[in-house]
Amino acid sequence: MIVVMKRGASPEEKERVYQELRLAGLRYQAIEGVERTVIGVIGTQTETRKVQLDVLPGVEKVIPILRPYKLASRELKKDDTIIVVNGVRIGGNQVVVAAGPCSVEDQESLIAVAGFVKESGAALLRGGAFKPRTSPYAFQGHGEPALKYLARAREVTGLPVVTEVMDTKDIPLVSKYADILQVGARNMSNFSLLKELGKQPKPILLKRGTASTVTELLMSAEYVLSGGNMNVILCERGIRTFENGTRNTLDLSAVPALKEATHLPVFVDPSHGTGRRQYVEAMSKAAIAAGADGLLVEVHSNPEKALSDGEQSLDPNDFAGLMDGVRRIAEATGKSLRSLNG
Amino acid sequence: MIVVMKRGASPEEKERVYQELRLAGLRYQAIEGVERTVIGVIGTQTETRKVQLDVLPGVEKVIPILRPYKLASRELKKDDTIIVVNGVRIGGNQVVVAAGPCSVEDQESLIAVAGFVKESGAALLRGGAFKPRTSPYAFQGHGEPALKYLARAREVTGLPVVTEVMDTKDIPLVSKYADILQVGARNMSNFSLLKELGKQPKPILLKRGTASTVTELLMSAEYVLSGGNMNVILCERGIRTFENGTRNTLDLSAVPALKEATHLPVFVDPSHGTGRRQYVEAMSKAAIAAGADGLLVEVHSNPEKALSDGEQSLDPNDFAGLMDGVRRIAEATGKSLRSLNG
Amino acid sequence: MIVVMKRGASPEEKERVYQELRLAGLRYQAIEGVERTVIGVIGTQTETRKVQLDVLPGVEKVIPILRPYKLASRELKKDDTIIVVNGVRIGGNQVVVAAGPCSVEDQESLIAVAGFVKESGAALLRGGAFKPRTSPYAFQGHGEPALKYLARAREVTGLPVVTEVMDTKDIPLVSKYADILQVGARNMSNFSLLKELGKQPKPILLKRGTASTVTELLMSAEYVLSGGNMNVILCERGIRTFENGTRNTLDLSAVPALKEATHLPVFVDPSHGTGRRQYVEAMSKAAIAAGADGLLVEVHSNPEKALSDGEQSLDPNDFAGLMDGVRRIAEATGKSLRSLNG
Amino acid sequence: MIVVMKRGASPEEKERVYQELRLAGLRYQAIEGVERTVIGVIGTQTETRKVQLDVLPGVEKVIPILRPYKLASRELKKDDTIIVVNGVRIGGNQVVVAAGPCSVEDQESLIAVAGFVKESGAALLRGGAFKPRTSPYAFQGHGEPALKYLARAREVTGLPVVTEVMDTKDIPLVSKYADILQVGARNMSNFSLLKELGKQPKPILLKRGTASTVTELLMSAEYVLSGGNMNVILCERGIRTFENGTRNTLDLSAVPALKEATHLPVFVDPSHGTGRRQYVEAMSKAAIAAGADGLLVEVHSNPEKALSDGEQSLDPNDFAGLMDGVRRIAEATGKSLRSLNG
Repeated sequence: MIVVMKRGASPEEKERVYQELRLAGLRYQAIEGVERTVIGVIGTQTETRKVQLDVLPGVEKVIPILRPYKLASRELKKDDTIIVVNGVRIGGNQVVVAAGPCSVEDQESLIAVAGFVKESGAALLRGGAFKPRTSPYAFQGHGEPALKYLARAREVTGLPVVTEVMDTKDIPLVSKYADILQVGARNMSNFSLLKELGKQPKPILLKRGTASTVTELLMSAEYVLSGGNMNVILCERGIRTFENGTRNTLDLSAVPALKEATHLPVFVDPSHGTGRRQYVEAMSKAAIAAGADGLLVEVHSNPEKALSDGEQSLDPNDFAGLMDGVRRIAEATGKSLRSLNG
Repeated sequence: MIVVMKRGASPEEKERVYQELRLAGLRYQAIEGVERTVIGVIGTQTETRKVQLDVLPGVEKVIPILRPYKLASRELKKDDTIIVVNGVRIGGNQVVVAAGPCSVEDQESLIAVAGFVKESGAALLRGGAFKPRTSPYAFQGHGEPALKYLARAREVTGLPVVTEVMDTKDIPLVSKYADILQVGARNMSNFSLLKELGKQPKPILLKRGTASTVTELLMSAEYVLSGGNMNVILCERGIRTFENGTRNTLDLSAVPALKEATHLPVFVDPSHGTGRRQYVEAMSKAAIAAGADGLLVEVHSNPEKALSDGEQSLDPNDFAGLMDGVRRIAEATGKSLRSLNG
Repeated sequence: MIVVMKRGASPEEKERVYQELRLAGLRYQAIEGVERTVIGVIGTQTETRKVQLDVLPGVEKVIPILRPYKLASRELKKDDTIIVVNGVRIGGNQVVVAAGPCSVEDQESLIAVAGFVKESGAALLRGGAFKPRTSPYAFQGHGEPALKYLARAREVTGLPVVTEVMDTKDIPLVSKYADILQVGARNMSNFSLLKELGKQPKPILLKRGTASTVTELLMSAEYVLSGGNMNVILCERGIRTFENGTRNTLDLSAVPALKEATHLPVFVDPSHGTGRRQYVEAMSKAAIAAGADGLLVEVHSNPEKALSDGEQSLDPNDFAGLMDGVRRIAEATGKSLRSLNG
Repeated sequence: MIVVMKRGASPEEKERVYQELRLAGLRYQAIEGVERTVIGVIGTQTETRKVQLDVLPGVEKVIPILRPYKLASRELKKDDTIIVVNGVRIGGNQVVVAAGPCSVEDQESLIAVAGFVKESGAALLRGGAFKPRTSPYAFQGHGEPALKYLARAREVTGLPVVTEVMDTKDIPLVSKYADILQVGARNMSNFSLLKELGKQPKPILLKRGTASTVTELLMSAEYVLSGGNMNVILCERGIRTFENGTRNTLDLSAVPALKEATHLPVFVDPSHGTGRRQYVEAMSKAAIAAGADGLLVEVHSNPEKALSDGEQSLDPNDFAGLMDGVRRIAEATGKSLRSLNG
């Protein structure tokens, strides 16, 4: 249910609405727009029907949200959500690229990679400290030391850091170092984790599960939003299909589908999405042409020697080429590439 | 790597092998067979090559395990693993059926359901206390009170209890009440959870993720086994495909594929696998005919009023019919149905 | 639309209905039951609304068919359709197994295979003369000579012959030799072929396409039925999914789904469905336990040397074992195995 | 096997090679490049090994083709194939858009649609005369009259015509009117049809089957090429997955995958690929950004009243907007939009 306040409704009038909702035991989220305030009320139809708000002063109208996701819905909020991370605006008319190694390996090589991805125009640094791996015998990430390397690379380059958190118990540790907390595809339906992430303030980059629909991705975002954290970036990263020429099938139609359904920013990960280095540039350009707000790209100084996912990592030179192409596509769609250079 | 000890190798000879492995920093798991002991050594080929064990007294031979899963592999252990839970043997020539409501609702109805599923021949009671739900606004399970109801129903009926654990932090709580801890399909790749479950002693029922291959299911089992808990039951419960006439596509060929690859018991969940009550009996019989060791079936005294998954729950009468059919199929394949009756 | 005639309606009364339908330009199919006649009328709701039949003498009621398939629907015909081919009844309480080589290779080996599959209890002989192959450079089948070998093997063994027809122009040729015309999975949506097959009298074995839903399979059957040929056997043979441990994912829940939706007989092909010899017996038993009316199994005297699909073909010995298992499962479900022996 | 002739090899030297191949019963296809001639030899390794060509005068080297498709492979032909249809060059550095109604309805509306798609920059006219429909009771296309309308629209606008052929027996009829013969997704594995199309000269637009891999699409193209017709345009149009928010999942990574594997032109059909009008523009731009040579777009003067696929058809106004976007993306990738205007 959405409560649309009249233009110029007073703070007292809004407070009166909040009071009624609290009395009825309903949670809510106020969206302060330029012209007016709208209030998203969380609850089933049966629950929200218990309060009668349209008669209150300052209330213009009360309308139901038809989609199963409420706070994530464009029905609630027409304007695109913009998430600002250390000065980088995600979700507007700028394209933002997060780049870096699959796994953080050591301090030196990380700073080197961070330096050249920044130079090529990346605005965020990505890198794995905790790695979800199919095999218990595979490299599982360097953990806290890797987080420290990331924090140090941020100091040197100014690039905000995106890294994955895999378990509720690791949230405090990862939050200490990261600017954006990533939820991997395998954890998209780890609802315990999503609930905890809703209670803390760092923005979330939520990857689509490989067998999850676009609607389910939005429902998972709703777990975070309904906990109180409205800063969620959605990320398409490929789904599982019968096609075995690529690691996954990157579902780019998820981009316009999400843009229609939600106000949240939408990223695309063409590295996991294809699993093959030689297709990453083409799919990066396609993602931006389809309307994505940003990309997540794996880059390694020496992909052949990467501890994980070398097959899909770009070297610095190919990444620079990719960024040139992405910049041209961004401009052709009326956007620009956000860079921390110059 | 597998170390096969000679028939009649002495405890000292075995201890000598363990000592070498510990010195090399390698973990291992000894399987004491009737005739001889085999020792599964965990580690990459590079790591295991560091020790030379074939020259030690009592060692017959050292052989590599070719499959990516090691402890789960039939290469390591030819005989079927049998897991005994409160006297119920899972994994031998008896078919074991776990039945009960999707969500535990209240004490009284749970005891009633437990009573009639036992009467029809079920040997385990299943029921959800913590429910992973796509929507944050949907019923999330009654939590600890539901666990208490389950424990009480076990007292009354003698049926051991299977219930889901969704997060590392809930393991102590759920373990307190449950006999078998279930990992749901959505958490099959929640490796943090699997690692913790490997360190505790309760048997695990591990459901296949809806976009996971049979090999990945075995790799997830390997996370538990390599932590030291060798009691894992695998469960096929349907995968995601384009077919929309059923909720999922129950992949019964996973049964012979798993039986070939692993010594662990294999269950099938035809309720989630089809999502449609009227197909559950046919698929239960098919699962047993394909060689499954057991079933997980949703039963509710009044499916129309169930708090979750009513569409796929059977009523007591249909369940009794299903059990008759299953018993006949079990016998036609040279097995029998394990019942706690009479 | 279904026109249900009164019990004991006279031939004149029926003829009157047919006349009205012909006058309105509507096609129809009369199903003569033991007790009464029902007439399936083909056409959109707009078209069928043009005639008013419920006022005619002998007409009990006129009811719409809600499913998109009409003649295939159980709404039209409650009883199972039984198709009799040279004395073999398909679709009743007997299980019928069609077995033989993927490709027909030569006369001698075909007669040998036909002999031992008959001995093990098969009631139909299957074998490919025209083979749809992914590569234009692969063996495409021996064509007409293979058809002649099949006809000769039928003479020797008495087993009716099932073989594939791939193109409208080949129908007369294949019909000359075969008892049942098979439409392969790749041609399930070759509507030109289906239309032509509807106009000729030989029964059709229609395989489900690898990306086709159960409903689409029924719609393809409807193409044949609406052309006037009511003898269609449906066949589940595996769909395409992400799982790559098997060639396809055999969707056995299609069996109860089809049994609910249609009166037509349902077969299962576990050879293509799994693509792996060692899973064929388990899935054959599972198919019968799920309620299938028959099986299509690839058997070769020497699978290692087969010109196609050797990996999924059984040798005579394994096939005999499979048939023992199938017989026991059939009996456990109240059916029996139809054999031409003894 | 590829025979690479020396630069400046004489016609006699080439003829000598052809002669040897014919003697050995091998088919071949000569590709006359600017600098040299390469000859693709069709056959299995066993067959091609029978001739020794590397000793002949004028032969530089003989190399095997490793991929299962031979004539379609970039190993055989490095340069992009360009297919010229009535002056429209398909496959170079120009983007070509084919647009028009799903089904051809009548002469007048077809000419109107053809006029405005041309005005917006389309270079080909598409429209269905024979329509493959899931239901036998649905509109099946107007057949030959529709072909005549298409031919007349070509006369008026100059736009070459693309239309589908569904059966071998219809090839002569459709060829009489169409400039490019389309093979629909349902017929991608109708090998009888592909073989016949290989024997006639009109270019083929071959759509990917909804459950076919990229490699299988190339193998189907190989059926046409190996018959002697080297003019095949490949078309990605969406595959079947579990995602149900779109009609199919448009697999744009097929574009770079095909561009790497083959010299043939690659089109994308975002109308069938998404099935939803509001996503067609985004996916059209993404397709061109990914490197596609052209698009197939459904346009209707009044989508709400279309006889088929109205939900995915654009109206003239939206199509004009799409073409503006596509033109900008084409230019950002160093290509231009081919238009018959001005």
